[in-house]
Amino acid sequence: MAERISGVLSPVLTPFKSGYVPDAERFISHCRWLLGSDVSLAVFGTNSEANSLSEGERSDLLDRLVAAGIDPRRLMPGTGCCSLTETVHLTTQAVKLGCAGVLMLPPFYYKGVTDDGLYRSFAETIERVGDKRLRIYLYHIPPVAQVGISLGLIERLLKAYPETIAGMKDSSGDWNNTKAVLDRFSKAGFDVFVGSETFLLANMRNGGKGAISATANVNPARISALYRGWASADADAMQQGLNGIRNIFAKYPMIAAMKRAVAHWRHDEDWSRVRPPLVEIAPRESAALVEELEAAGFDMPGL
Amino acid sequence: MAERISGVLSPVLTPFKSGYVPDAERFISHCRWLLGSDVSLAVFGTNSEANSLSEGERSDLLDRLVAAGIDPRRLMPGTGCCSLTETVHLTTQAVKLGCAGVLMLPPFYYKGVTDDGLYRSFAETIERVGDKRLRIYLYHIPPVAQVGISLGLIERLLKAYPETIAGMKDSSGDWNNTKAVLDRFSKAGFDVFVGSETFLLANMRNGGKGAISATANVNPARISALYRGWASADADAMQQGLNGIRNIFAKYPMIAAMKRAVAHWRHDEDWSRVRPPLVEIAPRESAALVEELEAAGFDMPGL
Repeated sequence: MAERISGVLSPVLTPFKSGYVPDAERFISHCRWLLGSDVSLAVFGTNSEANSLSEGERSDLLDRLVAAGIDPRRLMPGTGCCSLTETVHLTTQAVKLGCAGVLMLPPFYYKGVTDDGLYRSFAETIERVGDKRLRIYLYHIPPVAQVGISLGLIERLLKAYPETIAGMKDSSGDWNNTKAVLDRFSKAGFDVFVGSETFLLANMRNGGKGAISATANVNPARISALYRGWASADADAMQQGLNGIRNIFAKYPMIAAMKRAVAHWRHDEDWSRVRPPLVEIAPRESAALVEELEAAGFDMPGL
Repeated sequence: MAERISGVLSPVLTPFKSGYVPDAERFISHCRWLLGSDVSLAVFGTNSEANSLSEGERSDLLDRLVAAGIDPRRLMPGTGCCSLTETVHLTTQAVKLGCAGVLMLPPFYYKGVTDDGLYRSFAETIERVGDKRLRIYLYHIPPVAQVGISLGLIERLLKAYPETIAGMKDSSGDWNNTKAVLDRFSKAGFDVFVGSETFLLANMRNGGKGAISATANVNPARISALYRGWASADADAMQQGLNGIRNIFAKYPMIAAMKRAVAHWRHDEDWSRVRPPLVEIAPRESAALVEELEAAGFDMPGL
């Protein structure tokens, strides 16, 4: 069995050309910079505005990434859609391309659905994809999706599909939940990634496998350095430093603020564009963001 | 200008064959029965499990409906998706087919988005479809979508696109909200449909145009009779009767319960199937539902 992916992954920002058309060239270029900064690629995550893309747009970008020579073993594309049909299509494509795994949202339109219904949704997807290479990372992000992944659901899925259900991303922002998942499932080979580097050190100290974090788009090397050095003497100080940078971005709408930072440090205004229903941050906020980041010693080396 | 659609519409249940494949034949047959029961067709609504369908599945079903001779002037398909791309495709198709209008959800994955972002989303859709025949009914259903349509957003859209922004479906379940919309916009030609027949009489007495209600799938003729007879002396009694039937269905997960009723009265078990993440209601609940409906004198005449 191939070694499982671990470490720090970035939910890669999706750049748009005029007319909100996905910009494959800038996307590939950003992916290369992230890989060079020791960060793998959770393309099509929440911070990728993936749920503002059509199935076809995601599929095309994924094909282009691999065609450009990006190593699929560093890729964990988001493939969970509201419809079973689209989830199966995108997941099948990812497996065929040799991706390390997929990050799978539950279907998120209908609220108050049962664990029975969610189990059926994941199980049906696994059966239809029908490929032993499939590795699913369950995506728990109740503040946005509103539909979450309970411990009972993980247990049931893990029992039925122990090879396929590889782990999860916990974006609940609730360390108690992450800890409960780690305690109950990490020894069974269920790989836990936290959804923010704020919890990276705690996760590593409790048997977790890394982080899939928005700010890994802009601060990749330092977040990855903590992953590599979590057992070192200065790990707590590194964690503090990361939190400081994250807190600056978190004062603003996160996606727009990160795109603003990339646009600024790349000297490329096109990078700031977001797709509706998101909006760019205002000029005054942009100036304040950059000023505060510079004051904190932030940069994006190697751009 | 063509006369606008009004009256009672059903968010048409979507039947599935084995393997959760949309069943166009049963779908068309149910649509014909609804039209014969004086109810128009808001296909691809929440109760249609439309957000469990891919863009291609919706598109194919819509083409088939019109090819089967269903009058497009009785159709208000749901076309609002998370992605601008898919919303534009489905809306364009609906306009080209001559549909009376479209029922448009806001993009619903990202939460806490601004009215600026939602305005941009609707405006961009209108500009891209670029067809004077387009009539949009805004779909306000905060309990499910979590992203709603504010009065400020309606005002801004109506000012910019007075011909295109034709009305809304208010599924907030909050009569105060419906009343505020009616008071502020109905005289400007903004047509308000309530999302439950529970509010039909109140809506008609305050200048509204009808209802788009789940239970119009199973109780169409009597709901439509109240629409036709809202000014009559027995309107309040009719409203009470409708509420009684609705309250029975509302004890159960609504979509599964309505499919169960159709399966029972059509003697066609395939009708009970729902797509994940929904699940069918259990046999014991099914029996209780049918028993209670029969005791209340419910039937589905003309099936």
